[in-house]
Amino acid sequence: MRIAQIAPLAEAVPPKLYGGTERVVSWLTEELVRQGHDVTLFAAGGSKTAAKLVEGSDQGLRLQGVRDHTASNLVMLDGVRRRADEFDIIHCHIDLLQYPLFQDLSHKLVTTLHGRLDFCDFWPVYKAYPHMPLISVSDMQRRPMPEGVNWLATVYHGLPADLCPLHENGGDYLAFLGRISPEKRPDRAIEIAKRAGVKLKIAAKVDEADRTYFKEVIEPMLDHPLIEFIGEIDDGQKGAFVGNALALLFPIDWCEPFGLVMIEAMSAGTPVIAWRNGSVPEIVKDGVGGLIVDSIEMAVAAVGRVKAIDRMSVRRYFESRFTDKHMAHNYIAAYEKLRQSQMKLLAAE
Amino acid sequence: MRIAQIAPLAEAVPPKLYGGTERVVSWLTEELVRQGHDVTLFAAGGSKTAAKLVEGSDQGLRLQGVRDHTASNLVMLDGVRRRADEFDIIHCHIDLLQYPLFQDLSHKLVTTLHGRLDFCDFWPVYKAYPHMPLISVSDMQRRPMPEGVNWLATVYHGLPADLCPLHENGGDYLAFLGRISPEKRPDRAIEIAKRAGVKLKIAAKVDEADRTYFKEVIEPMLDHPLIEFIGEIDDGQKGAFVGNALALLFPIDWCEPFGLVMIEAMSAGTPVIAWRNGSVPEIVKDGVGGLIVDSIEMAVAAVGRVKAIDRMSVRRYFESRFTDKHMAHNYIAAYEKLRQSQMKLLAAE
Repeated sequence: MRIAQIAPLAEAVPPKLYGGTERVVSWLTEELVRQGHDVTLFAAGGSKTAAKLVEGSDQGLRLQGVRDHTASNLVMLDGVRRRADEFDIIHCHIDLLQYPLFQDLSHKLVTTLHGRLDFCDFWPVYKAYPHMPLISVSDMQRRPMPEGVNWLATVYHGLPADLCPLHENGGDYLAFLGRISPEKRPDRAIEIAKRAGVKLKIAAKVDEADRTYFKEVIEPMLDHPLIEFIGEIDDGQKGAFVGNALALLFPIDWCEPFGLVMIEAMSAGTPVIAWRNGSVPEIVKDGVGGLIVDSIEMAVAAVGRVKAIDRMSVRRYFESRFTDKHMAHNYIAAYEKLRQSQMKLLAAE
Repeated sequence: MRIAQIAPLAEAVPPKLYGGTERVVSWLTEELVRQGHDVTLFAAGGSKTAAKLVEGSDQGLRLQGVRDHTASNLVMLDGVRRRADEFDIIHCHIDLLQYPLFQDLSHKLVTTLHGRLDFCDFWPVYKAYPHMPLISVSDMQRRPMPEGVNWLATVYHGLPADLCPLHENGGDYLAFLGRISPEKRPDRAIEIAKRAGVKLKIAAKVDEADRTYFKEVIEPMLDHPLIEFIGEIDDGQKGAFVGNALALLFPIDWCEPFGLVMIEAMSAGTPVIAWRNGSVPEIVKDGVGGLIVDSIEMAVAAVGRVKAIDRMSVRRYFESRFTDKHMAHNYIAAYEKLRQSQMKLLAAE
């Protein structure tokens, strides 16, 4: 299949540092190429891919200091539009700007919505172009969206199977990985660890926007023998960080659309103790990939029970659903479904 | 002429409170209707106009609490695009989103750029569609833009002549009108008044973003017998506020693209003491509409000299350049220029 993948220009594909969407686009693109598809990747300059690369900017816009990405993304999308005939499927990972330009190409443009969908500022677009095919990254992610949009499929993210290899024995600490922010609830993670009497290692960046929250709420909680704040870690360190943990804590307080860190942990065989919120019940099957909780008390109890979960079976659960091969397979199935529905329409005419 | 005016959806046209762009669109639209043109106004719900109104939202998006206006503006622009055949000229007052959608309509789409143009995040669009006709609101506004864009004209903003009527006698205080923000330099205004020994009345709103600046820098300067802080005033109060002043102080520290308050003051016969910056030398002819200065010392001296400027001749200067009639006339000339250049192109083919 001739496939165009359109990444946001915020970060290179894969990103040098953060950028969940660009990371997923990279894993998908490389796997589609391995499966023999003819893939063109539209992405920021500095991207690395086995696909044909079309650069939409000199480098990732965030690193270039560009704050408003609209103009660059618009120009890239218009460039894709001009070349639309060259592709069987155009897969867009940008959430907003493409609909008017591609409204007559709903038979070949699919959009994965990577973010939360309760931000109603974007709804006028979804209501105006309800025929445009959309893909969600979890079923729960769809819940706030207006009625009548054209959901084609849910496709879970997937990782290369060797990125976070199985750590059969795990370790003795709880891991918190990601970003320090109120909705990620690092405060809950700290409280759980203290009450359970188990070590907690926090590997997390602090964004400028969250600096006050870090200083005022989190930093005062760090001065405790069980709590270790490591700061930001890079991709190469993640596998060992989650793999050597007893469990990953994911005590979120928001409707997480997916939550890559959960599948990174499960890839390493590390069970996840996660709050029942957003995608969590879909990604962590309770008792299989970890334990789902609703309160600090339940989480503390879960820390005691989590050793009973076999790390090898957590890994097997990951391998059965969340590899890049699964993701690419599911996307190809969605692309085929779109093309077949189009062929039926044409046949009916 | 069949003319579409496209306003941003941030505020109704005219706006209930702030919104310089929407206010100018309103003055232009109403004057074009008075001149007999067939005008359709695309704008936020709640707009009031003698033109045909097409509402792009329930009300001004800012009052609706919408933070990201992109989706609503995109859908409105696409609606205009579908109806493009109904218009001879489509005049857009949005700066960014329309270019890909209207790229084949450069013979009838003109865009007035209302904001500052040194924000290079938008440049990819101007570079990608250099043929799209642009109108600046002052010549100086153009300076930071990339080479090779298609400037059609500069058209100064214009007010209804009776909005801020002539106050022949003026008064004994200096006026500062607008927003409290570092680039507007209310601190300079206060210093000038104190050094000149003349009263200063400050009628200005304090945006959420500028609250710290107000609290830390400006508020401590207000406790002085010569300084009076009035706060926000509405449109109905502006005429008397500037009209009863000795002079308007406009001690800006940024490249002001236009500066409506300068022509509001001159409309009332009140001379402007303004820093040499951005559009100032074009709008305030030195010695005619006021005095242009480069330093606090010059500004203090100007306060002493400003009485020598005849208020009637300030008003006449306003009437000769900055009424809504001039603005509409100049826009019609720009529209005609665009249509004629297109006809020449067609004839040459």
